[in-house]
Amino acid sequence: MEKIWDVIIVGAGPAGLTAGIYTARQGHSTLLLDSGKVGGRALEAHRIENYPGFPQGLTGAELMDLFTGQAKRFGVEFKPETVIGIADAGDYKIVSTRGGYHQGKTVIIAAGIQRKQLSVPGEMEFKGRGVSYCAICDGPFFKDKVVAVVGSGHEAVQDAIHLTNTASKVIAIPGKKGYSEDYPELATLRHNPKVEVIEGQEIVEIVGDEFVTGVKLTEGRVNKLATDGVFILLEHISTSNILVEAGIDADEGGCIIVDRNQQTNLPGFFAAGDCCCIAWQVVTAAGEGAKAALSAMKYVKQKGTT
Amino acid sequence: MEKIWDVIIVGAGPAGLTAGIYTARQGHSTLLLDSGKVGGRALEAHRIENYPGFPQGLTGAELMDLFTGQAKRFGVEFKPETVIGIADAGDYKIVSTRGGYHQGKTVIIAAGIQRKQLSVPGEMEFKGRGVSYCAICDGPFFKDKVVAVVGSGHEAVQDAIHLTNTASKVIAIPGKKGYSEDYPELATLRHNPKVEVIEGQEIVEIVGDEFVTGVKLTEGRVNKLATDGVFILLEHISTSNILVEAGIDADEGGCIIVDRNQQTNLPGFFAAGDCCCIAWQVVTAAGEGAKAALSAMKYVKQKGTT
Repeated sequence: MEKIWDVIIVGAGPAGLTAGIYTARQGHSTLLLDSGKVGGRALEAHRIENYPGFPQGLTGAELMDLFTGQAKRFGVEFKPETVIGIADAGDYKIVSTRGGYHQGKTVIIAAGIQRKQLSVPGEMEFKGRGVSYCAICDGPFFKDKVVAVVGSGHEAVQDAIHLTNTASKVIAIPGKKGYSEDYPELATLRHNPKVEVIEGQEIVEIVGDEFVTGVKLTEGRVNKLATDGVFILLEHISTSNILVEAGIDADEGGCIIVDRNQQTNLPGFFAAGDCCCIAWQVVTAAGEGAKAALSAMKYVKQKGTT
Repeated sequence: MEKIWDVIIVGAGPAGLTAGIYTARQGHSTLLLDSGKVGGRALEAHRIENYPGFPQGLTGAELMDLFTGQAKRFGVEFKPETVIGIADAGDYKIVSTRGGYHQGKTVIIAAGIQRKQLSVPGEMEFKGRGVSYCAICDGPFFKDKVVAVVGSGHEAVQDAIHLTNTASKVIAIPGKKGYSEDYPELATLRHNPKVEVIEGQEIVEIVGDEFVTGVKLTEGRVNKLATDGVFILLEHISTSNILVEAGIDADEGGCIIVDRNQQTNLPGFFAAGDCCCIAWQVVTAAGEGAKAALSAMKYVKQKGTT
């Protein structure tokens, strides 16, 4: 007979690793699937100083190594497989991967999100050295500096306002078409003396030496702008095809809808972390991972006795 | 003019400290009030091995020292004052303490809960050495051992079932009146071969040497029972008077009702951690503290521009 796992976790970022720490520590057999590097998007963080417990800060890679070590210590089994489908097969849940499938009593989806990239020269080169995808995480590193904020959505507007807390100047660059909607915070943004909004232009290159020093804009001719940082806050793309096929409800942005116990609309399927789009922080993802694990264990126990 | 804080946080446990790390790091003036020891109920944990980032585990006091150092590093101001009231005074919120009052633009309630104690000889003496108030946290330390579970409520039933994952035997002791209600899990509990339910008796003393070795029960005469651990899972008492007077909604158990952004029913008042009764874990409290901080900062920003 094939192995039936108590818990299958999809995604080995902060949420998935924490869920695994919780379920494996309580003696539940736990399989953790991730096709990428263990640690997820947190690996990109060149410095994390708001994960509680590390007053001096550490790199995302260092923190994820600690999470991974803890999950392994309690017996989580890691498999580097790409998940291509999730389904409810009555008694058990099925998680299909490129190489086959796994059966579990419950599934925790912690698949994260993929940030849309700007795809201009310099973006990859300066990632972590001035190029950031998270204003709350990295804003304070640009205290009294000039930052550009790229993006036309609601999050880009809110985060540009937020960055005025610490930056000396914020240059908001919504792109050629301007802001996607007439967001209520746009007046606040435009009236803030620290903010300059540049409309009708796009970034064509991010330049620098060791660190970002500026961006090139185009409006017919190229116009160079001095900045110390570039926050790329484009709409995100989630891995939603799998979810739609499984019948798991998500909102129009592709974010999985869960209740306060991380339960999705399908019994026995839980979700946690960035794929639920609540806060994009390591500690909030970890907290949700723990809640999903507690809910999953309760589900396994109830199922086991009916 | 008196100081108006951006954020006042009530309670310096994992949720309150994390909220402070987030708000102070973003440049918001942050006051943290707690009449007790900084660290809250987490200080009682003799060993925490499920807070992600510490594969070898650490004591609750060690972990809370790290949280506190991080909050201080970002400039959170700590005051050891007892909060006696919270109110909305229109433009600002007022937090009254025994010695006076403070004004803030927003308030985060992270006041925790007070666990009801059994109040028998041996309880204090063996706290952290066999006596525990959290099954999820400490259950795995009693792998293949005998544990007693004291309590007649729903949580006591669920946690007794949960403890069968790791313990060799679970002795459930609901007390003289038996279980408070006919909970759906009671049949599961009674049919589990690892479980013995002792009804109509009460614990009168917890005994041991270095560690707990047993409990004394009374039913006319005293009856000694060998156990390695005692989980005291009585109904909890929250600090709800203050909340009721402030008009903050709580459920019948005294747990503050919040939405997924930790917003209470009153605008500008947020809540996080044990006082919301979701999961009683350090990492979940920390995650909620970070979410409350993000919501509070958004609120301050919106208020500042209207």
